[in-house]
Amino acid sequence: MEWKGFPMKTVVSLRSGRVLVAALLFSLGLSAHAFAQSDPLPSWNDGAAKQAIVAFVQATTTQGSPNFVPPGERIATFDQDGTLWVSHPMYTQVVYCLERVPAVVKAKPELATVEPFKTVLSGNREAMAKLSMDDLFKILAATLTGMPVEKFQAEVKAWLATAKDPRWKRPYIELTYQPMQEVLKYLRANGYKTYIVTGGGQDFVRVYSEEAYGIPPEQVVGTAGGTKYGYDKSGKPFLTKEPRLLLNDNNAGKPEGIHLIIGRRPYAAFGNSTGDKEMLEYTQAGDGARLMMLVMHDDAKREYAYGPAQGLPNTKVGTLTQKLYDEAQKKGWIVVSMKNDWKKIFAFE
Amino acid sequence: MEWKGFPMKTVVSLRSGRVLVAALLFSLGLSAHAFAQSDPLPSWNDGAAKQAIVAFVQATTTQGSPNFVPPGERIATFDQDGTLWVSHPMYTQVVYCLERVPAVVKAKPELATVEPFKTVLSGNREAMAKLSMDDLFKILAATLTGMPVEKFQAEVKAWLATAKDPRWKRPYIELTYQPMQEVLKYLRANGYKTYIVTGGGQDFVRVYSEEAYGIPPEQVVGTAGGTKYGYDKSGKPFLTKEPRLLLNDNNAGKPEGIHLIIGRRPYAAFGNSTGDKEMLEYTQAGDGARLMMLVMHDDAKREYAYGPAQGLPNTKVGTLTQKLYDEAQKKGWIVVSMKNDWKKIFAFE
Repeated sequence: MEWKGFPMKTVVSLRSGRVLVAALLFSLGLSAHAFAQSDPLPSWNDGAAKQAIVAFVQATTTQGSPNFVPPGERIATFDQDGTLWVSHPMYTQVVYCLERVPAVVKAKPELATVEPFKTVLSGNREAMAKLSMDDLFKILAATLTGMPVEKFQAEVKAWLATAKDPRWKRPYIELTYQPMQEVLKYLRANGYKTYIVTGGGQDFVRVYSEEAYGIPPEQVVGTAGGTKYGYDKSGKPFLTKEPRLLLNDNNAGKPEGIHLIIGRRPYAAFGNSTGDKEMLEYTQAGDGARLMMLVMHDDAKREYAYGPAQGLPNTKVGTLTQKLYDEAQKKGWIVVSMKNDWKKIFAFE
Repeated sequence: MEWKGFPMKTVVSLRSGRVLVAALLFSLGLSAHAFAQSDPLPSWNDGAAKQAIVAFVQATTTQGSPNFVPPGERIATFDQDGTLWVSHPMYTQVVYCLERVPAVVKAKPELATVEPFKTVLSGNREAMAKLSMDDLFKILAATLTGMPVEKFQAEVKAWLATAKDPRWKRPYIELTYQPMQEVLKYLRANGYKTYIVTGGGQDFVRVYSEEAYGIPPEQVVGTAGGTKYGYDKSGKPFLTKEPRLLLNDNNAGKPEGIHLIIGRRPYAAFGNSTGDKEMLEYTQAGDGARLMMLVMHDDAKREYAYGPAQGLPNTKVGTLTQKLYDEAQKKGWIVVSMKNDWKKIFAFE
């Protein structure tokens, strides 16, 4: 077996990871050609990123490999927004919350003259862009909580069935990245359990994760609020979504959420922004072969370009800052260039 | 298909469930004999409980059945203490916490003269039995939190390898109920994902759930505290267990925990005490065929007898009270008599 005795972790996490992977793969005679007939990642251009994924899977799933991982322990975690689907210029869940405001005000007309609902109803995008985080939390609380779990799920489902992204004029769940779909399938085909670990709402993403990614609801970790058990008039029990935060699944909250929901350290983790840094660190801190990847949005033509490649300020939330980019280089995390590494962005192209 | 058009839910949840199941099974010609050659539940005596389990599995997994459940939605939840293993006269986790006290005091000698540690160190069982809930929480906090996750897991593992139940003189993980092990395997063989939903500590049970029940850590829901992400001196990240309660997985906390960790309603739920009532109610409130079961400890000879059968006070925690027993009858939940329904209790018998 080619990988026997081969220190896989070195390959994927050394300072000069990209070059090293390519060089070693070449020296072992394992090129894209070797698996051309059943290429598991056809939407990826041949390069360090693609080769690192394939090398990681081979090292961790080949019996006898020093970095073999038993099937039950094969866990891979994926951030969602900006990693698995488009999140620019606005997170889909924020779009949902804003578009739900009219229905919320219809049910509670007294909110029509109260901020921030008044501004949202006005449709004035400039004014909306200036809403504070406090305002946003009020909108999230009003649209995501205070109703039975099943009612919320039905509302999200109904919205997803009709809402469309304004640029591509397609349902949001069609805006997933085809190369990442291939990574999900490739890992699953090799015994990995794929999880979404998102800063977005756990209950929100669970509504469509199966349809969009083939990931069942119980494999979605996200920002989560409490629920309250109670009974309706007929004595039938139900759970109400409460505005009580249990888990803020961003930054340090990602490894904390992984421990809470999964209870195992991932072997591979994929993100795209500062909010994913701790998840990748936590993944890398484990023994054996580990794969850490960041998707860089540097394709203004086919998707969007934001982050260091465009010289945007480092403080912008939800992007690959220059600081994180530099850290990735230093730690041997693979930075995926959408422009150079991906043959296509969407399945419908 | 024998079960086509058959309102399964009626069978398992009608007021006179036991009799009805037996009568219908008989009238359909489906007796224990029909599956004798590959009896999936050999440690169960033939009777209403066993037949209800088999009927439920057939109704929910046979293509074309009106109550067919797609594989991905097949979720079954099991309380642990008193349902899957012995929890009398003391929960195993409480034994663990008490037995850890000397090590905790050794690391912090100033605790030796402080209550409740002083009493625990004295070994005076009568005095220990009188410790308050507040005292118990102090012991739990000192033995279950304040250390890195991996250190805690290693401590539990080391304890389990040597600790023995005083009555059977065997490791605790051998004290699981063989008939329930068969139910777990039977459900899994039929596409069900089996979960533990325990009032015990999620992190505690996850250490041995795979070895004891074949249930991976990510399928254990339990009482959970927060963790805190940080870095050691070398910059390596780790999670510290905090004494901050996120989920009290008892009573209403069980359906709330199921929603948080799994995000789906179970089709079958198994418990043994008042702490499981809400989980069974929540399970029954779903559509289609559902199976709700309570294990009754009425076998003083082979295990223990406590609860209504012995006329103990209804207020005792962790038991099947008379009130819950009556409610089970009313709602068509199956009450399993250890004495009458189980041929054997443990695998080693």
